[in-house]
Amino acid sequence: MDYIFELQMSVRDYECDIQGIVNNSVYQNYLEHTRHEYLRSIGLDFAALAREGVTPVVYRIEIDYKYPLKSGDSFVCKLRTEREGNLKIVFLQDIFRLSDNKLIVNAKVIAVVLKNGRPSRSDSFRM
Amino acid sequence: MDYIFELQMSVRDYECDIQGIVNNSVYQNYLEHTRHEYLRSIGLDFAALAREGVTPVVYRIEIDYKYPLKSGDSFVCKLRTEREGNLKIVFLQDIFRLSDNKLIVNAKVIAVVLKNGRPSRSDSFRM
Amino acid sequence: MDYIFELQMSVRDYECDIQGIVNNSVYQNYLEHTRHEYLRSIGLDFAALAREGVTPVVYRIEIDYKYPLKSGDSFVCKLRTEREGNLKIVFLQDIFRLSDNKLIVNAKVIAVVLKNGRPSRSDSFRM
Amino acid sequence: MDYIFELQMSVRDYECDIQGIVNNSVYQNYLEHTRHEYLRSIGLDFAALAREGVTPVVYRIEIDYKYPLKSGDSFVCKLRTEREGNLKIVFLQDIFRLSDNKLIVNAKVIAVVLKNGRPSRSDSFRM
Repeated sequence: MDYIFELQMSVRDYECDIQGIVNNSVYQNYLEHTRHEYLRSIGLDFAALAREGVTPVVYRIEIDYKYPLKSGDSFVCKLRTEREGNLKIVFLQDIFRLSDNKLIVNAKVIAVVLKNGRPSRSDSFRM
Repeated sequence: MDYIFELQMSVRDYECDIQGIVNNSVYQNYLEHTRHEYLRSIGLDFAALAREGVTPVVYRIEIDYKYPLKSGDSFVCKLRTEREGNLKIVFLQDIFRLSDNKLIVNAKVIAVVLKNGRPSRSDSFRM
Repeated sequence: MDYIFELQMSVRDYECDIQGIVNNSVYQNYLEHTRHEYLRSIGLDFAALAREGVTPVVYRIEIDYKYPLKSGDSFVCKLRTEREGNLKIVFLQDIFRLSDNKLIVNAKVIAVVLKNGRPSRSDSFRM
Repeated sequence: MDYIFELQMSVRDYECDIQGIVNNSVYQNYLEHTRHEYLRSIGLDFAALAREGVTPVVYRIEIDYKYPLKSGDSFVCKLRTEREGNLKIVFLQDIFRLSDNKLIVNAKVIAVVLKNGRPSRSDSFRM
């Protein structure tokens, strides 16, 4: 796949749960942080957008859990984007363990852009 | 829908993000806590299961975000379960705002039961 | 001690870490949620205060960890307040396990009220 | 001060709260992650210690909040250690904003080493 952005991180022990593995909800934190860093990297200015009444929001998320990360693991989050109709932006995001490139999580995150509270053509969202 | 379990909670301010609404990943915390309280309510003993080498794990999650919760909101998480083949248990979970019964989140969580690390017939998981 | 407010909660499994006990930082979440619910109970309106440029902030926190909470535990957070000089408000907060009233955490949280970014007499903060 | 370890991190947006600044409890996550990475760097093996019944636990924490971190900030956590009597290890930890070296948080974390559940001479904890 042709990823357009990637970000490396390491598991922090407080992210692990009783089973000694990263809690399911924490992957959503990793995925969000990667999306925000991507948007920052292409110069997207949330504050300026907000002043124009433009807000991107997550509409739907699908996550397949393939293999768990553990304390001490480092990993990379990779992403690419797609359009779905005029109103939706799809982020395809995968997480791989760094030591052996094992696929950990495979996610599809669908966002819509709200302008003054209503869905807006996502091309107003310059990506 | 015929829900079989429900749990009321209130938004905690630290769960809200810069936009003043509950962060997307936090709903997964609400959903997990509800599932675990449900399993506890039917007498499922994780420790005893673990001693037999039986572990339920989340295999896939789908969440539709309908409307955001805010600071001060109270809400109820409702769930029902379904089987999918012999190996999967599906939790259908909805979150409603208490003040007006507005649908906030609609989720499908697919779990599998691992026995000694391999998928096992979920009827060994007494539900 | 003469507590003026209390709030009951239960441990959520995602709050527990590898050792199977509630992670140290999570107690700060419990303490904050209790303070905010207390302030809400006395009618303190953060939004209205913010419009006047008034913001309460935490200045210092001291926490003594006496005994850990575990998955399945319910507990109560109790608080009382004190003034320290004209500028500081002290929250004395204790957490007890419900089953046997065992002391879990003992905390002192010192807040100051900022008015337009500068420390302000805390009596402008009606408590 | 003579710091013996440091770790750089960046604020993640989900760590920020309604006020647009990093939530107070999150600094404890940063501090813990830094301590654990330090302990890992000196070859301390938690799993091996646990097999000998040795567990380090936080006994008391004191945090002074000097200035808040915001979305987009990068920072460095620095630490040094001290002994306090035979039974306590003190971690002195400071967080500085990278852009201008501004002091953000100043913390003192006192740990004790438990051996089979009882405080043990911390020299059994090879640091």
